[in-house]
Parts: sequence; structure tokens; C-alpha cells
Amino acid sequence: MASLSTKTGQVVDRSVLDSMLRRRLFYTPSFEIYGGVSGLYDYGPPGCAVLNNIVDLWRKHFVLEEDMLEVDCTMLTPHEILKTSGHVDKFADWMCKDPKTGEIFRADHLVEEVLEARLKGDKEARGQKVEVDEEKEAKKKKKVKQTKAVKLDDAVVKEYEETLAQIDNFDGPELEKIIAKYDIRNPTTDGNLLPPVAFNLMFQTSIGPSSNMPGYLRPETAQGQFLNFQKLLEFNQQSMPFASASIGKSFRNEISPRAGLLRVREFLMAEIEHFVDPQGGKKHARFEEVKDVKMTLLNRDIQLSGSTKTEEMTIGKAVETGLVDNETLGYFLARIQLFLLKLGVDPKKLRFRQHMANEMAHYATDCWDAELQTSYGWIECVGCADRSAYDLTVHKNKTGAPLVVRETRAEPLKVEEWQIDLDKKKFGPRFKKDGKTVTAAIDALSQELREKLSLDLEQTGKIEVEVEGVAGGKVELDKELIKIEKRTRVENVREYTPNVIEPSFGIGRILYSMIEQVYWSREGDEARGVLSFPPAIAPTKVLIVPLSTHQSFAPLVQRLTTKLRRMGVSNRVDDSSASIGKRYARNDELGTPFGVTVDFQSVKDNTFTLRDRDSTKQVRASEDEIAQAIKSLVEGEETWEDVRKRLPEFTGQEVE
Amino acid sequence: MASLSTKTGQVVDRSVLDSMLRRRLFYTPSFEIYGGVSGLYDYGPPGCAVLNNIVDLWRKHFVLEEDMLEVDCTMLTPHEILKTSGHVDKFADWMCKDPKTGEIFRADHLVEEVLEARLKGDKEARGQKVEVDEEKEAKKKKKVKQTKAVKLDDAVVKEYEETLAQIDNFDGPELEKIIAKYDIRNPTTDGNLLPPVAFNLMFQTSIGPSSNMPGYLRPETAQGQFLNFQKLLEFNQQSMPFASASIGKSFRNEISPRAGLLRVREFLMAEIEHFVDPQGGKKHARFEEVKDVKMTLLNRDIQLSGSTKTEEMTIGKAVETGLVDNETLGYFLARIQLFLLKLGVDPKKLRFRQHMANEMAHYATDCWDAELQTSYGWIECVGCADRSAYDLTVHKNKTGAPLVVRETRAEPLKVEEWQIDLDKKKFGPRFKKDGKTVTAAIDALSQELREKLSLDLEQTGKIEVEVEGVAGGKVELDKELIKIEKRTRVENVREYTPNVIEPSFGIGRILYSMIEQVYWSREGDEARGVLSFPPAIAPTKVLIVPLSTHQSFAPLVQRLTTKLRRMGVSNRVDDSSASIGKRYARNDELGTPFGVTVDFQSVKDNTFTLRDRDSTKQVRASEDEIAQAIKSLVEGEETWEDVRKRLPEFTGQEVE
Repeated sequence: MASLSTKTGQVVDRSVLDSMLRRRLFYTPSFEIYGGVSGLYDYGPPGCAVLNNIVDLWRKHFVLEEDMLEVDCTMLTPHEILKTSGHVDKFADWMCKDPKTGEIFRADHLVEEVLEARLKGDKEARGQKVEVDEEKEAKKKKKVKQTKAVKLDDAVVKEYEETLAQIDNFDGPELEKIIAKYDIRNPTTDGNLLPPVAFNLMFQTSIGPSSNMPGYLRPETAQGQFLNFQKLLEFNQQSMPFASASIGKSFRNEISPRAGLLRVREFLMAEIEHFVDPQGGKKHARFEEVKDVKMTLLNRDIQLSGSTKTEEMTIGKAVETGLVDNETLGYFLARIQLFLLKLGVDPKKLRFRQHMANEMAHYATDCWDAELQTSYGWIECVGCADRSAYDLTVHKNKTGAPLVVRETRAEPLKVEEWQIDLDKKKFGPRFKKDGKTVTAAIDALSQELREKLSLDLEQTGKIEVEVEGVAGGKVELDKELIKIEKRTRVENVREYTPNVIEPSFGIGRILYSMIEQVYWSREGDEARGVLSFPPAIAPTKVLIVPLSTHQSFAPLVQRLTTKLRRMGVSNRVDDSSASIGKRYARNDELGTPFGVTVDFQSVKDNTFTLRDRDSTKQVRASEDEIAQAIKSLVEGEETWEDVRKRLPEFTGQEVE
Repeated sequence: MASLSTKTGQVVDRSVLDSMLRRRLFYTPSFEIYGGVSGLYDYGPPGCAVLNNIVDLWRKHFVLEEDMLEVDCTMLTPHEILKTSGHVDKFADWMCKDPKTGEIFRADHLVEEVLEARLKGDKEARGQKVEVDEEKEAKKKKKVKQTKAVKLDDAVVKEYEETLAQIDNFDGPELEKIIAKYDIRNPTTDGNLLPPVAFNLMFQTSIGPSSNMPGYLRPETAQGQFLNFQKLLEFNQQSMPFASASIGKSFRNEISPRAGLLRVREFLMAEIEHFVDPQGGKKHARFEEVKDVKMTLLNRDIQLSGSTKTEEMTIGKAVETGLVDNETLGYFLARIQLFLLKLGVDPKKLRFRQHMANEMAHYATDCWDAELQTSYGWIECVGCADRSAYDLTVHKNKTGAPLVVRETRAEPLKVEEWQIDLDKKKFGPRFKKDGKTVTAAIDALSQELREKLSLDLEQTGKIEVEVEGVAGGKVELDKELIKIEKRTRVENVREYTPNVIEPSFGIGRILYSMIEQVYWSREGDEARGVLSFPPAIAPTKVLIVPLSTHQSFAPLVQRLTTKLRRMGVSNRVDDSSASIGKRYARNDELGTPFGVTVDFQSVKDNTFTLRDRDSTKQVRASEDEIAQAIKSLVEGEETWEDVRKRLPEFTGQEVE
């Protein structure tokens, strides 16, 4: 069972954290007064602010830093596009139905749940300590039979553990075998289940008044970017490589959502499609800047051996040794890590896991997930795949649109090839309405075949060509009609379909996982939670608290709040009658990094105390100095330690 | 027919503007390589940047300025919520089907189109000049019969004009009468149409794997805010008034979308729900700040009289005279105007139109639309309605959730009322299983009835109470069981359902209408278009152009671009080999307000020229001075005129 420690070494109690996040309205189940709908959540003011701050930082870190072309495409998507992309046929999870109760289970989750429960029962039977997730237990008690303390054979334990390590690697038939082999049933009723069937995860709808255009809500933002490739290349003045980017909601009709914000039916994504020439090893011009970034990697071979042991390595070495397929992919993996660290993610709770062969789409060259450690275990928050030329190719083939790059060759390319000339005057009368079909069949002949046919033609004066549907499938042509010669063709333009490297961010998952990692509670008091957001991410940067409701404080508060707003620093005033300690405690839970107290001394000499959320230490200085210090803290130019060194400490009353 | 003039007095040629916007990838039809879907558009990089800038400004102008509580709610919405809100029954347009061709028309648009065509034919027959929308004509030629130059009776012309002025005021049966009265048919085939039927505009889908939960894509962001009212009030520490806000996509399955970005099926909205105590005239604490704002108003009486004549008035006077219902509504109307002007909207092309009685929802107290003048006519871009207590009341009644405010009364309220006491010991045995029903019926008795019953009881010793479903509908009670007395109750808490003022912004419509208003072209050359975005809205703030590809320019360009980026000023380099004039012309079309040229003089003395998009005038100064000037221009601290006065003009080469 997963468990997570805070930076101060406490075990994260998810039910305490969760109730704090709901009480402070970071998020709330959607439509709760109507009973709610599983997998749908609303973000309240602080959650929404953190979400906006993450998006803002993402835009600066990726889009602005690399001049990416941001686009905003529709969520409604007609059937044909998602048929071509493969989503209609393959974007599915495997579900098992209990024929008696009508309950529906997601097959891989069911296997996980049951095997984990058996392993736990085995530990209990062996008298080993079992970590208990109380919330999960409480829920289970209501509906699931209690775990039985049954000892398993050592070999069985090993098998179970290996199966769990590879759980993402199995398709439907494999899951069916596992379910049969380990006799996995409905955990509540012990009833047998029907074999897994595929359930498409797209929400379906119909566009227009006459219900004649079936469509879906997009499962990812990527397709809109691919479809616009040609226009984006033109906008980029035909220059390669380049990236497009998109931030927006996507949808997934989950079979049975659980795990709160981590598995939802509607979610915010930020995706990059970096288009790169497949020739020349997919080098990246700025790889040098990141090559020494150290990363924690979990490669596919280790996972297939049933282990989850990670390895520390610079991204430079990972690319050099071929573990990461190419520089461009490596560049983005390192940039993803730098982004996550800016958000406040703990580097020790971040790893990059490589996809196993079956887990990856068949066309992908390599794929890594950035995973964050949470109380639910390691959670995939960012995917980064080399999708090769797959997407542009399928849409090009389907529509005929030239989703390609054409570039003038520095040196013209000379191609020796077998060319065919047809005598059109004789050809027409001979084949009549079949002329087009025959010509097309001849055009499609491979170079090898052309070489062979030219010999035949020379030797016998005639050849036979296979043409489906004409003259019984074979057409005879003689020297009068056809000529085959080896000639040199000069190519001045090179045409190619770019490959795509796709970093894809689940913003909601990042938000939740990051919150679990910055959460801790004041020593000795579990109820006094703190969210240590970095200032850039915090919903509000500064809390202003007048000592009391005394009227002499009002003009100072007004002046401070206006001054900070002009500096672009978001702030809130809490002039409620609660004690200062209570007001700060409330804002610790909201993750407000700094607090300014306005007291009677302030009225006399216009000095204020500035409090740091994490240390609860305070300094005291003039209005201008305090405002300036806040600005430089929020913009990341100084740390609290810097400020504390240069401004006089205030020890009058430490406000925890 | 509508026409629009640019600020330089040219008539906006929509087809020229449109082709420029598509060429520069402000927007593009979605799925175009698959043939496109009407009513769905993607925003390319400059359109997406303008959209983000508008949202950013909106957040600062409304959310931050007034500490609104921003929330992010799901788009997927279960049936029951939209049934309660009234959308399932009433969110519909009227459509007419041609039974022969199967074509579907939106009834009000059809009436408009046909009557406008007849009025045009009448003008032609009278020999009057008719403004021609060429693009529209070109489209019509393909499929619609040519307008006939037929003179109409003066009385008929008047009737048509009055009908058009009230077109938004008609419901289905009224449209049916109009269609019959004026013999309106399919404009292409002249065939008769079926009577109008209601078509619900929500996209339907189903949530979860077993298809048992029907749902819709939200038609507005408002419902999510209403459902969370109680939690938001709690978050706001029970303090009233307050506002929530939400920015996100909404959906409308339009019958036959036309008019490009103005009528789409998926669109970005920004909505505010301001919750206010209905007692005390809905005053607003900051109304004083805006009361002198002058507005152009079109009131409902004028429209009902068949005219569209506007009137200039301060919002203070509009509220004072009762034209605008209350201060809070007036405050937001003024704030909406201030926001639109920040975006670059021309005050002469902005009016506020009051809804007519039938156009407004039955529960609304008053409603105004901010309309922007475009080549399509006056377009509703922001709605601002006083929705009374409707929404909170219907959801409260349906779910029982306390969507109310409870506040301690300064003075306890004494209420004289008739109270009823029941003798529970005798009551139970007497009514057995019906006890609850009878008690409920008694609790529900009105004060009037109680007074009357108390007299009966006194006089006859018994009374009869109507109870549905018990003892044939009437229950007899005597003095032993029931006592009715007049007593004084002291109420310390006041409970009320807040009213809602709802400013609702269609961001895509604002974007397109604003673009039409800031568009113009250089004198004498229609092909040289300019978009005069204010700097805050422009997709890119600065274009940096080296004179040529000479290598000595590269380090200067690099230094400038890094410096500007650090200052938070977005910029792009165009180092293509095109002439400087061409590069500037491209960026005039993109609306880039400033340009910096790097030339050989720059290499010698580190001075640069700074070009103003609108005047094409240039100044020349040192790197630091130029960078500082750009920052102050972009942040709105100086105008170009200010900069031009204090820095030396450059007349070497004026780059138009």
C-alpha cells in the first residue's frame, strides 16, 4: 500500500488533507447538492487560482521561451477525424460486467485491487506490519468483504508482484487469462464476471439539427494541432523545426472513476507537438543547455523483469547510451523536470518511467512518463512520446492534404531510376474506359519490377502487367505502347513528413500531486495544515491583517493593498474579528506565503511586520521596504533567508 | 444592409479583412482538410494570443479589481440540473423544415432574410441606392433566386421595418403567423415550409459506461456557480454582497450557423454572478465611482415603437430615472463599457440595448446587451441581466439545499403570528400511520386560515382541516388535540435568497467585433491592412528587424530580445530576407504596435530606431532608452506622442 511522507517526515493522512482542501474550497464534487457525479469536480477560488498560475508558468516556460505557436482548437470533433486517428477503434479500456448484479469493473483496476488485497492478507498471515490506508478501509468496510489473512506460497507472491509491476502492459485477452488463472471475482459478492470487453472512452454527441453528424468530445488536444500543420508551417514561414502548443479541456468517459482529482472525466491538458525532421538523428539545438540535468529513470527492461528500481543519470548520458531515443526527446524530458521543480515538486518524489513495448502505441519510437509520488502511489502526470510520423501520415493519407515539409536541397539530388513512357495516342483507343486504371497500375510498379520488365520487353517485345479488374487481371503491352528506360532524375526539392515529439501535461493531476507534496502540518498539531506553495503558484501572495477592527488601521490597510496591487502582487485583507493566529492559520491552509500585520506601531511610524509562512519568522521595516521585499520575494529575486538577513527581525510576537 | 466605416473613413470590405485574418491565421475553420464543420473554428497563434490577452485583462478588470471568487466548473452537466434551470424545456430556437428538400431554416433568421430582400427590391424599384454586401451577394447567386425589384406599398414597407426592429421579440406561434401573413417560403425553391418547431440547442451525451445518465454540454457557465453558492458564501466568510466569476467554454448546437466567428457552436464565455440582497434597492458601494460615465442607450419603448434611436445619458441619470432598474445593474453596465474601451472598441460603435419584455426571461427584472457595430450590423457581445432570485430558488426548491443567506438582525424582529400546538400523546394513537401527513398539512396552514380556525375552535370546540389522502380529504380535530393562539415570535436571524446580477461576456464575439473596429488600411492601398490593437491586446508587442542577414546584427538582436523578454515584453524577430517594408507590412496585419530596426549605425553606436505602427513615424535613441520607451508604451504609462516628443525623430527612412 502506498504511503507518502511530508518534508517534515510526517505520513500524509489523505483524509485530513482532503477534508482541508474541500473546506478551503480548492475543489469540490460537481453538482454535489444534486448528489454529485463521480469523476466530475469543480475548482473553487484557491484551486482555480493555482490552476491559472500553473498554466501561466507553463506558457512562460514552454510557449514564450521557445516561440511555440499556441492554438485553440474545438473540443467537438467529427467522427471521421477520430476514426482516422485510431481513437474510435482503440481508445478504450477493458471492462468486466457482473452478469448477476450488473456492476461494471475496469479490468486492470480489478486485478490490481484483488491481487494487492491478497498480498496484504499474506503479509498479515506472516505477521508482518501492514500499512493501512484508513479512508480506503472505511470505504471497503461498507461494501467489500474483509481481507482474509491467508498465507500464499512464495512463488505465488512473486507471480503476483510481477503481474502488478507490469499491469499497464496487458491487453484484454491477457487480462482475461490473468482473471481466469488467479480466479479473480467480484470482490463484493464473490460472483464470477464476464470476460473483459473493450469500452470506448469518448463521449459521443451529434452536431447540427438533423442528427446526421456524429461526433465526440476530444480525448486530447493533439488532433487539432496535427490537422492545422500545413497552416502552422506556413505561419512559421516554412521554417523547421517548430512546435505548436495548446491548453484546453479534454474528456474521457472513465468506467468507474476513483482516486479523486487523479482520475476524472473532464480535465485540463497542455500539449506540445514539436515537429522535427526525422533525418539526422533528431538533434536539438538547445540540448547542450540541459545535458547535465540529473534525472531519476525507470527503464522498460527493469519493469519487464518485475522490478521498479530507478537509476540516476544525466539526460546527456541517457541519450548518449541510447536509453532515451534521441536529443529532442531528451531535451523535453529535462525541460519537463525543470518545469515541475518550479511548481514546488520534491525532486525525490519525481521519476521518469519508460513505457513498455505493449504499453506504447505501435508507431511510437519511445515514450516516458513523468511520475509524481503521492499517497496513491506513483502517478503519471506528464507523458512525453516520440510519435514518429504517424499522425500526419494517417491524416495525409485520408484527406490528401499535403501535411509535409518541402525544402530546397542545398545540393540537388540525382536519382537513377527506371522510367516508363506510354504512347498515349495508341493507348487511349486500345484500352478505352480502362485506360486510367491501367495507367495507374503501371505508375505504381516498383523499381525492381520495372527493371525486370524492361529486360522482358527487350527480349520478347512484349510484357504482361497485372491490373486488377481489367481483362481478367492481366494486360499485355508491346513495344509500340510502352518504353522502359533507366534515366537520371534531378530532385531540387526534398519532401518529408515530420516526426512529432509530444510532451503532454495533465494539469489537474500535476496540481493534486504537487499539493500532496507541498503539504505538511505544524509540529504537534495535525489539524494545523500548511501548503508550502512557491510564491509564483500560491493563490494569493500576501495576507494583510490589521491587529483589530480599530478604525485607525483602515487607511494603512487601504494604502498597502493598493500599493501591492499596483506592483502586480495579489493580496487579500482579512479584517475579521478572529485572532491574528486564527487568521494566519486559515491562510497557511490556503498556502499564502507572506503576511503583513498592521498594528498600533504602524500607525505611529508606518512600519509593518512581514511574516514568512513556512518558518513563521517575522521582520519589521518601513512600508516601502516591506513592499519592495514582497515584490522581490514573489518574483523569485530573493529568498526569505535573504530578506531575513537584511531586514531587522521582529520578535515581539511570533504568529504561528 | 449593414456597413461599417474604419477610423480613417473607409468602408470595411469584409471579404478583404476576412482573407487577411485567415492568411495571418487569426482563425481558421476547424477540420478544414476534412471539409470543415459549420460553426466550428480554431484560433491560430495571433488569434489565440489576442484571446488570452482579453481574458487576462478581463480577469484584472473584474476578478482582481473586485475580489471576485473565480471558479472552474465542469462542462458536462447531468440532465436533472438543466431540467431544473429551465434549459431542457426552453433553451431552443424555432426551426422550419422544407418537407420537399429536407432543408432546415432558423425561423427568425429566415423572416429577416426574406423581408430584408423584399425591402431591398423595393428600394431598387424606387430607384434608390442600395448598399451591396458583395460577399453575401456572391454566395446568394449560387443558390438563392435573385432579388426582384418589386415596389411595395408604403404601409407594407413600414410593417416590414417594424417587424425587423422587433425580430427578437417573437416566439414560435408569432413567427408562424408572420410567415403565413407575409407568405415567406424557402428562398431557393420557393417551396412552402412546415410551421416552426422548437429545437433544443444543447449538445446531448451520456455519462458513464452503462449509458444510464443522460447529460448535456453546458449552454452557459452560470449553473455551476449557482450550485456552489452555499460553499462560496462560506468561503467569503458569510459576507454579502459578493460575486463569483467563471471563464470557460460553452456550447450551442446552432441550427444553421453563419456569420463566421459571431455564431459558433463552441465558444469562450466569461460570466459574473453578483449576489446581492434584494432589500434596500440593490445599491452598490462603488456606484459613485462610475455615476458620471456617459453611455449610449437604446431603451425598450423606442424599440417597441419600431425605432432604433439611441440616447446619450450618464449611468447616474439612467438609474435615477428608473430606466436602468438599480445601482448594481448600472454599476456593471458602466464597468462593461470601461472594459470594452480598454480593448480598443470605438465608443461611437458601442451601444447598450435594453431587452424587450418578451425577449427577457419571465423572471428577469431588467436586461441590457452591450452591442458592437460591425459589418454584420449591431452585435450583442455582453449581456447584463438582473435575474432576480430565480436560479437559486429553483435549485433550492428541487434539492432542499439552503441556497440562502442567514444574517443576524441588528434589531431582533418581533412577529405576531398564530401558532398551533398539537397534543402529541393523543395525536399519535388517533392518526397512526397518517400522523405525519396530518401534521404536515396543519403546519402548512396560512396565517389567515389559522385566524379563522381559531375562531371556529373557540365557538364550536372543533374544526375541520383539509388533508389530501387521509379520511376522504377532511380531518376533524377537537380542543383536546389542537390549540391555536396568537403569540409574538422573536426572529434574531434574517434569511433571504439573494438576487443575481449577471454580466455575461461572449469573448469570441468581442474579439471579432473589436477586430473589425480596429481594422483599416494604408491610404491608397486596400491590400495593406493594419490592425490597431492597443498594446495590451496585441499578440506580439515588438517586432525586431535586422536590416539584412549580415552577421554583425545577430548579437545585437539577441541582446535586445533577451532584454525585452526579461522586462516581460513579448517580441519576435523577423530576420527573413524580405525587405524591411514587407516585414513591417506583415506585422501591421498582425497588429504588432512597435518595431525596432537594427542597422549598421546600431553596430557602431548601439542606437536603434523605434517605429510606431499607426503613424509609421520613427525615433532613434540608445538601447536603454528604446527599451525603456517600449516598456512604458506597452504598460500604458506613455503614449506614442509622449515618446515622440522626448526622443529624437528619425527621418532617414520612413518604413510604411
